[in-house]
Amino acid sequence: MMLTDPSTKYRPFPQVDLPDRQWPTRTITRAPRWLSTDLRDGNQALIDPMNAEKKQRFFDLLVRIGVKEIEVGFPSAGATEFDFISGLVQSGAIPDDVTIQVLTQARRDLIEKSFESLRGAKTAIVHVYNAVSPAWRRIVFGMDRSEVKQIAIDAAKILRDEAAKQPDTDWRFEYSPETFSTAELDFSLECCEAVMAILQPTAEKPLILNLPATVEAATPNVYADQIEWMGKHISKRDHVLLSLHPHNDRGTGVAAAELGLMAGADRVEGCLFGNGERTGNVDLVTLGLNLYTQGVPPGIDFSDIDEIIQTVEYCNQLPVHPRHPYAGELVFTAFSGSHQDAIKKGFAAQEIRNDDLWDVPYLPIDPADLGRSYEAVIRVNSQSGKGGVAWVLQQDKGLKLPKRMQADFSRVVQDVADQTSRELVAADIWQAFERHYALGSDQPYKLLDYHETGASGDRIFVGKITHEGGERSISGRGNGLISGVLAALRDELGIEMDVVDYNEHAIGAGSNVNAAAYVECRTPDGITVFGVGMDADVATASVQAVLSAANGLAARRG
Amino acid sequence: MMLTDPSTKYRPFPQVDLPDRQWPTRTITRAPRWLSTDLRDGNQALIDPMNAEKKQRFFDLLVRIGVKEIEVGFPSAGATEFDFISGLVQSGAIPDDVTIQVLTQARRDLIEKSFESLRGAKTAIVHVYNAVSPAWRRIVFGMDRSEVKQIAIDAAKILRDEAAKQPDTDWRFEYSPETFSTAELDFSLECCEAVMAILQPTAEKPLILNLPATVEAATPNVYADQIEWMGKHISKRDHVLLSLHPHNDRGTGVAAAELGLMAGADRVEGCLFGNGERTGNVDLVTLGLNLYTQGVPPGIDFSDIDEIIQTVEYCNQLPVHPRHPYAGELVFTAFSGSHQDAIKKGFAAQEIRNDDLWDVPYLPIDPADLGRSYEAVIRVNSQSGKGGVAWVLQQDKGLKLPKRMQADFSRVVQDVADQTSRELVAADIWQAFERHYALGSDQPYKLLDYHETGASGDRIFVGKITHEGGERSISGRGNGLISGVLAALRDELGIEMDVVDYNEHAIGAGSNVNAAAYVECRTPDGITVFGVGMDADVATASVQAVLSAANGLAARRG
Repeated sequence: MMLTDPSTKYRPFPQVDLPDRQWPTRTITRAPRWLSTDLRDGNQALIDPMNAEKKQRFFDLLVRIGVKEIEVGFPSAGATEFDFISGLVQSGAIPDDVTIQVLTQARRDLIEKSFESLRGAKTAIVHVYNAVSPAWRRIVFGMDRSEVKQIAIDAAKILRDEAAKQPDTDWRFEYSPETFSTAELDFSLECCEAVMAILQPTAEKPLILNLPATVEAATPNVYADQIEWMGKHISKRDHVLLSLHPHNDRGTGVAAAELGLMAGADRVEGCLFGNGERTGNVDLVTLGLNLYTQGVPPGIDFSDIDEIIQTVEYCNQLPVHPRHPYAGELVFTAFSGSHQDAIKKGFAAQEIRNDDLWDVPYLPIDPADLGRSYEAVIRVNSQSGKGGVAWVLQQDKGLKLPKRMQADFSRVVQDVADQTSRELVAADIWQAFERHYALGSDQPYKLLDYHETGASGDRIFVGKITHEGGERSISGRGNGLISGVLAALRDELGIEMDVVDYNEHAIGAGSNVNAAAYVECRTPDGITVFGVGMDADVATASVQAVLSAANGLAARRG
Repeated sequence: MMLTDPSTKYRPFPQVDLPDRQWPTRTITRAPRWLSTDLRDGNQALIDPMNAEKKQRFFDLLVRIGVKEIEVGFPSAGATEFDFISGLVQSGAIPDDVTIQVLTQARRDLIEKSFESLRGAKTAIVHVYNAVSPAWRRIVFGMDRSEVKQIAIDAAKILRDEAAKQPDTDWRFEYSPETFSTAELDFSLECCEAVMAILQPTAEKPLILNLPATVEAATPNVYADQIEWMGKHISKRDHVLLSLHPHNDRGTGVAAAELGLMAGADRVEGCLFGNGERTGNVDLVTLGLNLYTQGVPPGIDFSDIDEIIQTVEYCNQLPVHPRHPYAGELVFTAFSGSHQDAIKKGFAAQEIRNDDLWDVPYLPIDPADLGRSYEAVIRVNSQSGKGGVAWVLQQDKGLKLPKRMQADFSRVVQDVADQTSRELVAADIWQAFERHYALGSDQPYKLLDYHETGASGDRIFVGKITHEGGERSISGRGNGLISGVLAALRDELGIEMDVVDYNEHAIGAGSNVNAAAYVECRTPDGITVFGVGMDADVATASVQAVLSAANGLAARRG
């Protein structure tokens, strides 16, 4: 039951005392080290955890796209976990530049089991954690600060000693003061320093200090403040890597990671598309592509985003949302007319501009960089304007309608969309186009063949057309082909129109080229009617266009 | 195709020159004005836009949960839109404290049509926009600054004049310098000032200046800088309301809105669950509940979140993701053992504490505040520890297993989970419990009846039990009931065990109360075996528990 005044039940998160705060003035100029915890934090949050086949498939994907640090599981959690990790190590299939990481609670038996699972590894990170925040100390452990710190110290000693027993492996260590974001900063620092004192990291072999927003509990600037505070106060800053591990309970995990990097962090732990406990871990795909769109190489290859989506959806059995940044199926789609129009102009400008810079309205990234095509960019519904419709015709049929004809046809599409109340696909639009511009075979006047006689400036058009179920010949005289056709229509069929605008362009290129012709005609009583013709021959296309207009006029007059 | 060095194609977003930046030191202490644009920005981004029935249903939902400003559409976009809006106004069904808003491009015919759709409204906001950023000016319009500003000025004059024609309506105006977030701040300011000069807002009738992140193009702190800059530089700050309209292209729309509010904005435009063009508008549900969990009344009632989800999913035909903050089906679910254990302890501590403050590990909000139940909180899979298993038994059967028995049983569940590699539901756990603790009817020793004789300190237990397909009587002497049963087992059946721990508790309350008894037994050769008994009679439950242990021992010895 929601409270009208929630202040009796929930308290505002306290501010961090951080004079001379630096991060708001900074930008991120290089990618952090990424750690994928898909196989651990992600996997443990799945309705159906991955089996070995899925884990291997996910691992292979991560390696393929260039993730260099991979948390592969929680070896002491059960046989499935242990066997997968141990098998991975034994297989020898971990590339030399990829480091696996395992998580363990700060207990001797679990740490020992974790080292056991890694027997034979060339290099590995053992990640130990204990929760340090007051709520956990009080509610979960019933311990005071010194007892909780002692857990960390004892664990660090076991890490050190177990590592010494397997000297052939290049051991790295990670310590997480879990629930860091809701703990007192001075106590988190105290625990980190205590662990450092045992493990004696160096600049060459730094200790990873991972500072989790285990539960996101404040606006993301507070997390950045906490990270900057830690970076400022930790001793031997160059002997540690500060690592972020944001969750997304308040929907600001990506922001927390970004502001945290601005605040000086070196590394980010997260999952592809933000899988993980509850609302998920921070999404590494969004973080990486956010960097990419600022010109910063992310170090992860997202060039086949659809393959990444397919594998992740298969392994996690969770969908990527249609509006997920960069990846959702709707994110490169513009429905609104003004958006469609702007995007169309952006692509056109891009084509003629003389630089490589991406600058297309409404598209923060070139979909092609992700292996997506432009075709899906624009869909048409009752909210769409002429730009979108014209775009679809251009993409689908190569037609570049003149501006006034775009407006004419968009009204037609608008009516269809209003009637159907659903998205119109390219086929719907093409159907409406054929019907409205009388391109079907069931039209009153259909060109079968024609020839021209006479000389420049005085030509006689002689055409064979369908008419009332049969064929008939019509002819007319003019100063060119179109005026000849118009004369034939007027003299033989009583159809009086002038051509007020005319356009023609090639469709396609090479030997397969076709022509599209567009005419805008007006009758003496002021009716405007458009026509279109398409043929391998440019002249035939023009004749067809005029007949198309004549058919349109006939239809309008019933 | 992804570029190894994207700096040739994408440029970093420039920093804002904002000396003496204030927002990082602020917190949000009250809710902003909310504007739902679900029926406009949301609707125009749907694969299948809403029909009138869906629009009405969505509108009714928004009114019911307390949204006071609702953008109902784009009346000049087509007949569907116009008719719905006009119908809504004519129906008289808009509550007095709810203001509808319509969007229009800055063109005379469209603005006039918009006013026409609102004929008869008591009050309404007409929202006019034109894109102001350099990319739009250059690519979309081919106009310079002064031409673009003139569009805004002309539109403002039409607004003023059209409003004067319908003096019975209390008109409010909103101006959006569209693409604000990617425009030069001084030019956005110039356009806003020009519109203010025409519309002459007052403190009583302020102009809404809506500053959209039409495309999210930088980290969210930059948007906050832009908002703070505008608030600092706009003349007559008290005559305008600064409104935010963040999109989510970089996954930081919620953060942008929050930091923007800290930077001084008064109002937020967004959609429920973040629907809207491409990656969506900012999510009003997350924003509102983020405030709620800081003790700030959001002014929107989310107490039946499931009903809100159902309506929105029906109208939008888009899913709410399982990990969506506050609303996804997995966000109050903990799979990992340590999480489950901590949550269980948190609930227990909450029950005995003497204040109302919410403080349960891993749960940033009480699911009950959203109309969710606790039952779905914990699921069990191969990653779960004893805490989760114990929780399920407690929720499902009312059993509170002693700690060592939890550990015993969690190993059993672990094995089952490893074998099945899927989530275990409560029924799976119960089945494992019955089997392991020999509670089925097919056990060697099953209590049929018993009585006791003797006096305090010297009792004789006489029981009738099933044995090898038949019944038999056993008796034993001890200083109490349990020692009598143990003696009977030893003397008559050759089963030698001691009870090293014993626990019993009531299940349920009132006339329907039952008892659960747990024994931890040890054999002379050091085997530990647990037993459980449940009966309406506390004594009978104890006897059953000992027999359960005896059955377990028999099973173990084959």
